[in-house]
Amino acid sequence: MTTNKPKLLAPLLRCPNGPVDARDFNPDAKPGYPNGKDKDGDDLRTELEPLLDDLQERLFAAGTRSPQAPRVLLILQGLDTAGKGGTIRHVIGMMDPQGVHIHSFKRPTAEELAHDFLWRIERELPRSGQVGIFDRSHYEDVLIQRVDHLAPPEEIERRYGAINDFEAKLIASGTVIVKCFLTISRGEQKQRLAERLTNPEKYYKYNPGDLDVALKWESYMDAYSIALTRCNTDAAPWFVVPANRKWYRNWAITNLIIEALGSLNLGWPAANFDVKAERQRLEALPSK
Amino acid sequence: MTTNKPKLLAPLLRCPNGPVDARDFNPDAKPGYPNGKDKDGDDLRTELEPLLDDLQERLFAAGTRSPQAPRVLLILQGLDTAGKGGTIRHVIGMMDPQGVHIHSFKRPTAEELAHDFLWRIERELPRSGQVGIFDRSHYEDVLIQRVDHLAPPEEIERRYGAINDFEAKLIASGTVIVKCFLTISRGEQKQRLAERLTNPEKYYKYNPGDLDVALKWESYMDAYSIALTRCNTDAAPWFVVPANRKWYRNWAITNLIIEALGSLNLGWPAANFDVKAERQRLEALPSK
Repeated sequence: MTTNKPKLLAPLLRCPNGPVDARDFNPDAKPGYPNGKDKDGDDLRTELEPLLDDLQERLFAAGTRSPQAPRVLLILQGLDTAGKGGTIRHVIGMMDPQGVHIHSFKRPTAEELAHDFLWRIERELPRSGQVGIFDRSHYEDVLIQRVDHLAPPEEIERRYGAINDFEAKLIASGTVIVKCFLTISRGEQKQRLAERLTNPEKYYKYNPGDLDVALKWESYMDAYSIALTRCNTDAAPWFVVPANRKWYRNWAITNLIIEALGSLNLGWPAANFDVKAERQRLEALPSK
Repeated sequence: MTTNKPKLLAPLLRCPNGPVDARDFNPDAKPGYPNGKDKDGDDLRTELEPLLDDLQERLFAAGTRSPQAPRVLLILQGLDTAGKGGTIRHVIGMMDPQGVHIHSFKRPTAEELAHDFLWRIERELPRSGQVGIFDRSHYEDVLIQRVDHLAPPEEIERRYGAINDFEAKLIASGTVIVKCFLTISRGEQKQRLAERLTNPEKYYKYNPGDLDVALKWESYMDAYSIALTRCNTDAAPWFVVPANRKWYRNWAITNLIIEALGSLNLGWPAANFDVKAERQRLEALPSK
């Protein structure tokens, strides 16, 4: 199980410090993927399931004991069709659903808009012992909101620092953040949109608005470049996940979660009761 | 895939009408399980995954279109160690987590106690297109509350009718309810509690209070008998799932969910846009 696993994937996917251009990342790359294993498709990922399962259960167990137990927050960002939903289905789908909290952030409601942009984010944070998954996040407030001028420029400007402060606070209170930008090429996006217009079983995933967004590709690349540059802190770095190949994307994010969970070095909680006394009490329980 | 599948499992697990005694159900039974397949363990369940996946996605797709789309609510009831958590892990774990809403009802908070017992239940109902899972439910309000006299007798008495009205209302507004009583034997429960006291990795699952509850076995059997008798409506019947064998329990509940989803006869939503026009617009999208 561990033979094909690289030492650590996180350093290979970490977004470099300093100014970056989102266009410069190669969506076809496969950092850390074992040579010659391309044809294995999903096998290398599914081999990781027992390890992921063990680590998740340790986190869950810790959460049953203390509200100060750690939590993990996976933030998925990327353009339409980049594979946020597919990642949840295939990667998070390998985990015990009891320890998972998924939230998909849509267009803000009137009530959400009447609060600070982080208000609705706070409400969906994972509890102690949970793995939280954000399908889109507070980054939309500096992405679509910037591209479509949905907030005044000075408010957008304020948000980068507010996001860094917010994430620093989460980390200080015991959250490990895994922040992923799934990067695909324009050609791949076009092909995935075409699939949704070809297969009637996929019509439901298509929205004419997706195409309007796709036409703003350059503006989104600019907005992502700024977010990747300004919110790439040591405590909560961005990971850039090449996502043209779905099996690579899924394998890579599985590894990032495993590494995040592993970094917690969680043992099993000790008994918070007298084991011998309880065994004696249990002996006395009728079995019929 | 369908060769080993019984025609319909639901009628075989349906709790009989009229007065029942919860002690009369055989927790070792395997209604509907193909002869000679016992040794296959989990294989028969995992074979159902593609079918479950397809049906769940149709429900999810419907939910993207209309707040009146159907929803499914799986209610899991049973004594400690009966396998509610294991069912979620193994059965719900086969589903796309994006379409699932799980809630585990614990001891009510002060705020919950200040409302009618159904208040907290309403808040956790699945949305259109979702499969909701209740790990314990409003039935606790006529089970532990009855056994431990946590509410006045006339209030407990009122609740049976209130539950039937509530469930009828859910059904009328488009919810399919799959209500399962997982039944295990005292011997099996004792053994499962013993495991939690033997394996240090399972200590976190043990609570001395579980043993106090186990000692009230007869009172719980009485309370379950009443709930099974009085809340077994044609619209929302109880299913009694023999749960001494975990692989049977998981296989059976997988089938009940599949049958519930199948009963909706959901196709794929038609395009709510002009497919040809969108294809033409897409053609014009740059691919570089």
